[in-house]
Amino acid sequence: MRHIKVIGIGTGNPDHLTIEAVRALNAADVLFLPDKGEEKAELAAVRHQVIATYGTRADQRHIGFSVPKRQVEGLAYGDSVDAWHAALADNHARLIASHLGEAQTGAFLVWGDPMLYDSTLRILDRVKATGLDFSLDVIAGITSLQLLTARHQIPLNGIGQPVTITTGRRLSQDFPETRETAVVMLDGEQAFLALDDPDAEIYWGAYLGMPQEIVISGRLGSVRQEIATRRAEARAAHGWIMDIYLLRKPLPST
Amino acid sequence: MRHIKVIGIGTGNPDHLTIEAVRALNAADVLFLPDKGEEKAELAAVRHQVIATYGTRADQRHIGFSVPKRQVEGLAYGDSVDAWHAALADNHARLIASHLGEAQTGAFLVWGDPMLYDSTLRILDRVKATGLDFSLDVIAGITSLQLLTARHQIPLNGIGQPVTITTGRRLSQDFPETRETAVVMLDGEQAFLALDDPDAEIYWGAYLGMPQEIVISGRLGSVRQEIATRRAEARAAHGWIMDIYLLRKPLPST
Ligand SMILES: C[S@@+](CC[C@H](N)C(=O)[O-])C[C@H]1O[C@@H](n2cnc3c(N)ncnc32)[C@H](O)[C@@H]1O
Ligand SMILES: C[S@@+](CC[C@H](N)C(=O)[O-])C[C@H]1O[C@@H](n2cnc3c(N)ncnc32)[C@H](O)[C@@H]1O
Repeated sequence: MRHIKVIGIGTGNPDHLTIEAVRALNAADVLFLPDKGEEKAELAAVRHQVIATYGTRADQRHIGFSVPKRQVEGLAYGDSVDAWHAALADNHARLIASHLGEAQTGAFLVWGDPMLYDSTLRILDRVKATGLDFSLDVIAGITSLQLLTARHQIPLNGIGQPVTITTGRRLSQDFPETRETAVVMLDGEQAFLALDDPDAEIYWGAYLGMPQEIVISGRLGSVRQEIATRRAEARAAHGWIMDIYLLRKPLPST
Repeated sequence: MRHIKVIGIGTGNPDHLTIEAVRALNAADVLFLPDKGEEKAELAAVRHQVIATYGTRADQRHIGFSVPKRQVEGLAYGDSVDAWHAALADNHARLIASHLGEAQTGAFLVWGDPMLYDSTLRILDRVKATGLDFSLDVIAGITSLQLLTARHQIPLNGIGQPVTITTGRRLSQDFPETRETAVVMLDGEQAFLALDDPDAEIYWGAYLGMPQEIVISGRLGSVRQEIATRRAEARAAHGWIMDIYLLRKPLPST
């Protein structure tokens, strides 16, 4: 049977790969690499750096594929994602069928960890549903969330307390009075600027694990403008940005 | 100045260390290792296996320390943890002052990732507050949560949806109607047995990353007894257990 490995590679620094991930990378006869379309050139460059640093197989084939643009106009969010996943599943099924031999191993190198706001596992589920059979292995990778807390040297949770991981779009729903800690990803709208919670603490990070990494922390009321400014400058300078932040309610003073 | 590295080592399999973690391990002149008191022998064994597998320095000193028992009787949870952290901080301050030279590097090997329900960073904060100065580096490690999703080959979040990470003690508060996904850690009470939500899906895992690993998934109503039974058997057989699970609301059928 064909075998596919979905390998988490961390978020920018090849040294964040686990030993298991390095081994999985080199167990693959074929690597499937997004290299055209909507994929950012910088992320493709990191994948190539991972392979150049830790790949050992001269006989490994690298198959590039194009990532279609998600159609947003005229579609509800769920329908838009659904159509996009369907298109990707078609592509992947064709890729796997034509480039991976019956007894071979293929791999996808996924940013961070495949569990966290990533569609690879869902898309491979759809590929299976088309009737193309393969066995699957998922290899955990360091997430942007872990780099954020490592850089700020903070625990994720309050002692015995829960944590919510959410998106910019959902923040105002998911950080009400009762939620002590929220982590926000996929925030194109800078939802922290609209929060009416100046005493909350924010721990922000952009390009984590990469040379251009930036981290800022402080009371939301004091640092949010600085974050917005640095974010805009960095985005203009590099042409793209990926950022993540943690919000924490102030501890009761008594 | 003294330097301390807090290194996430994953949850049982030395190959889950990152390359950065291996490098940090070998940058340490001194490793501080819990080896007596409340520390489980099996966890100590994994740390020693990590060192045996990936340690390269013959001149590295290994300093064992005892983990005091947390006093629970007559104390509220917060006070109990506070007193326990205070005792650990005293110990750590003494350990560091007496075993780490002024220009040396020491390291603590932390289970999983130091950000997730772990007290090492809080304790080191307290050590600093005593006036003992050091620089600090935090190295991310693969968490039990990531192994759970990797083994079950599932995404953590629904598409664009939030996730709550919580404890057994808080589950009934943190998995109400509006929370699609909850991850439960530190559940000594098997809080899933009391949930009135038979159609939710549960993805359970114990001893993840270790040879005795067990995973079970299914509708809560169908598999919860099986989980309870397997859990009790495994706990009796091994003398201890660590488990984690993810709960997901059923998708609306329309
Ligand atoms: C599609 S999600 C993928 C997350 C990834 N699977 C992970 O494990 O981190 C992309 C989001 O992750 C966060 N992110 C990913 N890489 C990042 C980085 N290097 N620095 C800061 N945030 C990052 C940002 O919030 C971004 O919007
Ligand atoms: C004190 S917390 C430490 C968590 C750790 N820092 C991490 O990153 O996973 C201990 C809890 O983590 C979970 N856990 C840790 N290791 C585990 C393993 N190997 N298998 C299953 N659950 C584990 C269990 O829920 C356990 O009660």
